[in-house]
Amino acid sequence: MPSPALETLDLTALRRVFDAAFDHMGDRDRPVVVHTDPVDLAARFAEAAGGLPLGEGAHSLDQLRAALELTVELSVHTDHPGFVNQNFAGADPVAVLADALGAVLNTTSATYEAAPVFTLMEREVLATLAAQIGWPRPALDAPDPAGLFFPGGSASNLAAMQLARVRADPELLERGSRGGPDLVALTSKRAHYSIDKAARLLGLGRRGVVSVDCDEGGAMRPDALAESLVRLRAAGRRPFFINLTAGTTVQGAFDPVAEIVAMLASKPSETRPWLHVDGAVGAAVLFSRRERHRLAGVEAVDSVTWNLHKLSGVTQQCSALLVRQPRELRTTFSTRADYLFQADKKHAGLDLGDLGFGCARRNDALKAWFTIAARGIAALGRRVEHGVDLASRFEQRVLEDPRFALVCPRSFGHVCFWWLPPDLRGRSLGPEDHARLHALAPRIKARMQDEGQALIGYQPVNDGPNGWRMLFINPAVTWADAEAILERLDRLGRNLD
Amino acid sequence: MPSPALETLDLTALRRVFDAAFDHMGDRDRPVVVHTDPVDLAARFAEAAGGLPLGEGAHSLDQLRAALELTVELSVHTDHPGFVNQNFAGADPVAVLADALGAVLNTTSATYEAAPVFTLMEREVLATLAAQIGWPRPALDAPDPAGLFFPGGSASNLAAMQLARVRADPELLERGSRGGPDLVALTSKRAHYSIDKAARLLGLGRRGVVSVDCDEGGAMRPDALAESLVRLRAAGRRPFFINLTAGTTVQGAFDPVAEIVAMLASKPSETRPWLHVDGAVGAAVLFSRRERHRLAGVEAVDSVTWNLHKLSGVTQQCSALLVRQPRELRTTFSTRADYLFQADKKHAGLDLGDLGFGCARRNDALKAWFTIAARGIAALGRRVEHGVDLASRFEQRVLEDPRFALVCPRSFGHVCFWWLPPDLRGRSLGPEDHARLHALAPRIKARMQDEGQALIGYQPVNDGPNGWRMLFINPAVTWADAEAILERLDRLGRNLD
Repeated sequence: MPSPALETLDLTALRRVFDAAFDHMGDRDRPVVVHTDPVDLAARFAEAAGGLPLGEGAHSLDQLRAALELTVELSVHTDHPGFVNQNFAGADPVAVLADALGAVLNTTSATYEAAPVFTLMEREVLATLAAQIGWPRPALDAPDPAGLFFPGGSASNLAAMQLARVRADPELLERGSRGGPDLVALTSKRAHYSIDKAARLLGLGRRGVVSVDCDEGGAMRPDALAESLVRLRAAGRRPFFINLTAGTTVQGAFDPVAEIVAMLASKPSETRPWLHVDGAVGAAVLFSRRERHRLAGVEAVDSVTWNLHKLSGVTQQCSALLVRQPRELRTTFSTRADYLFQADKKHAGLDLGDLGFGCARRNDALKAWFTIAARGIAALGRRVEHGVDLASRFEQRVLEDPRFALVCPRSFGHVCFWWLPPDLRGRSLGPEDHARLHALAPRIKARMQDEGQALIGYQPVNDGPNGWRMLFINPAVTWADAEAILERLDRLGRNLD
Repeated sequence: MPSPALETLDLTALRRVFDAAFDHMGDRDRPVVVHTDPVDLAARFAEAAGGLPLGEGAHSLDQLRAALELTVELSVHTDHPGFVNQNFAGADPVAVLADALGAVLNTTSATYEAAPVFTLMEREVLATLAAQIGWPRPALDAPDPAGLFFPGGSASNLAAMQLARVRADPELLERGSRGGPDLVALTSKRAHYSIDKAARLLGLGRRGVVSVDCDEGGAMRPDALAESLVRLRAAGRRPFFINLTAGTTVQGAFDPVAEIVAMLASKPSETRPWLHVDGAVGAAVLFSRRERHRLAGVEAVDSVTWNLHKLSGVTQQCSALLVRQPRELRTTFSTRADYLFQADKKHAGLDLGDLGFGCARRNDALKAWFTIAARGIAALGRRVEHGVDLASRFEQRVLEDPRFALVCPRSFGHVCFWWLPPDLRGRSLGPEDHARLHALAPRIKARMQDEGQALIGYQPVNDGPNGWRMLFINPAVTWADAEAILERLDRLGRNLD
């Protein structure tokens, strides 16, 4: 029945655009991106689709169809094997379908009342991930679920830091941080910047985060951590949170969790900081019996961030925060708003929304549950192994090919390397060579963007010059694709001017 | 081409479930919800769909199809006219399609490089909303967009509070809040609980939020605000943030923005707190020439939260934070992570991801842009007017019908009322009557959940007993639907036992 408040639109043509885009997932015959200047992009919409500007009146159905078609044409195809640019890629079509169905059923995952199926699915996914960590698996209707979904890894890390802060200083919730202890968080120099952002947001400031040195591969040095702890305590500060990274953004390094857990176990437990693992990228190794050794010791930490939208193909965003003592989510975040979380309502004990710092929540559970159900844990583990295998072979190739040089040892699915101009090959590199390499990267990248054949990233590695970062996250990538990217870099580098 | 890392699944049957669910949007013939106990729900999945538990192996395609079908059957149909329970309802099918296409194109809206179309669309939607507020409309490629999308209204409010805090105490980003000024935020007693949650997260604590009294309709009293400001300053505290609500959660009240702006304009500008409007629910009135008077004066505030997923039919989540001096987003939040926001990359000046406290961001722009393009601003305004018209008629009906009583004056699209047992009709109510009414609501609600015909909420209103809250947000609701809900309440109330 038509709505009394809205015109009924014939969506047939628009649905065909969705259907066609879905059918083309995994299509290798289009470029990864048709790179377009912002001015040209706006002009394309103005020509064919009524323009990007929005106004009082509606675009016509023809313009809307054209706008969707242009959107598909001019967007990045992150399922294309040329997309090796970021720590996510290759959305699983089953996740896409579940995500789309979630949009149809558009609800908030705050209460069992508004989201009965999704509440149980979220609890089940969290319990499944907790079990992979090695923690007990709460029942579906347990008073406290094993954690909570947050709208991204940064938000999960932020929540973990707040959990740690409230454990260290319970008065904070009432008093605020003024007048409280001088809390300080520790993280490695190569950790994700969300830790810095979280510290600023929480009011700890930059002074509230201390960066710990890493080894050449990008993993935190336990001896440097121990020194930092001693130094901070001697200065009267209180370390309350240690962030260990599983899969750093650039190098894919894993901080040595077991070693750090053992080091801390010798200290009195009342002063032991909250141990958090930012496994946004790397927690997926727990799906693989072969690769899970990289996170040995993880069962002893207090919380884990685990993004299913990175290495497991769930669509953006799908981030779980798992908490060893999940009751603390409630004591830290709950405010029991009486208009929403009525304790006298049926099944109110299952409600999830009050366990975080948001209110209404997009349903991220259906796509997560459905992807794990459709693939099974073992297959999600093989997806990780596939990337590691290719990365290992790629590292070997870079080592053997004189046109390239490895920037740092590989830890996981991330290979950082340079393309070398002919005169830099086969010799050691000095500061001037580094400056040349640093300047080369953006120029080659601009050419590659123009060609639209591959999206690979560069950035400074270990505070040195820009290096290329090849990420084996995308399940569509074959060995031939990886080799083709090397050849393309070589061709673009040689033909720069 | 099949992925080398993942089995190719035949998704035909699963797509049919999506197609059918999409085709049934707006269907009045099914119940709004088939209310199911958690235990029964899990049993239904166990019988037909391989069960909710996830394990090493995959569910079969038949089980997956059955799981999707069960998900549709057992979920709440928030587009059904019986869904009048929350401050969102009635996803627009055009938004659903755009959201689904966004899932296919699965990317992060952090950089122009990874999201060229969506970056420009987000900038355009933000500029359009800013123009409705009465602010200048930044160009699509302006150094600073008019604001930013956050993953929900709570996150937008949180960001606004942090912007205000950094303006009041710029040293905070470095030093932290310890040793800084004694900051305090003010909000009304009827404001959304996200303000309290934000204060705790930011480390202000409950002590860092002062609640200002409201009138009977739920709007902040400017005289009470003025008194609070004087009292706090006399106590040596520093009010840095005033949250004004446009459309409170329960009563739909609008705090008097123009009056409060005028009151503050007489104070020295250096001590003037940041003025924020939480328009998560109510900012949509700015789409309507007839209804925008409710936000008169809004152009003078510093920031506005505006959720397009509430009154405008965009799917969850779609929350914009508009900022009058948008440069402050950059100075407050940016950390310029060099692996992602390389300043030397093409079009890096357009990147949005560093302007918030997250990193990767789900693309919320396509569905927002597409919904406004498909409907036009004027039609989105009529959607709001439709709700207000029905609410006004409903209020009148409640006033005239002796079986019901109005709990408080109506402000907007929210009507709070009691169903009265026969012996309470036509007389004034004492404390014992209130206690009876309070206890009645959950019992009637439980019956209504069992019947699955309507989802209407109750909660304490103005600290009094539970009242029913009828929300005219859903564009599918007709006058006949609204009347039917009254009759149903009466029937359930009379037949309780």
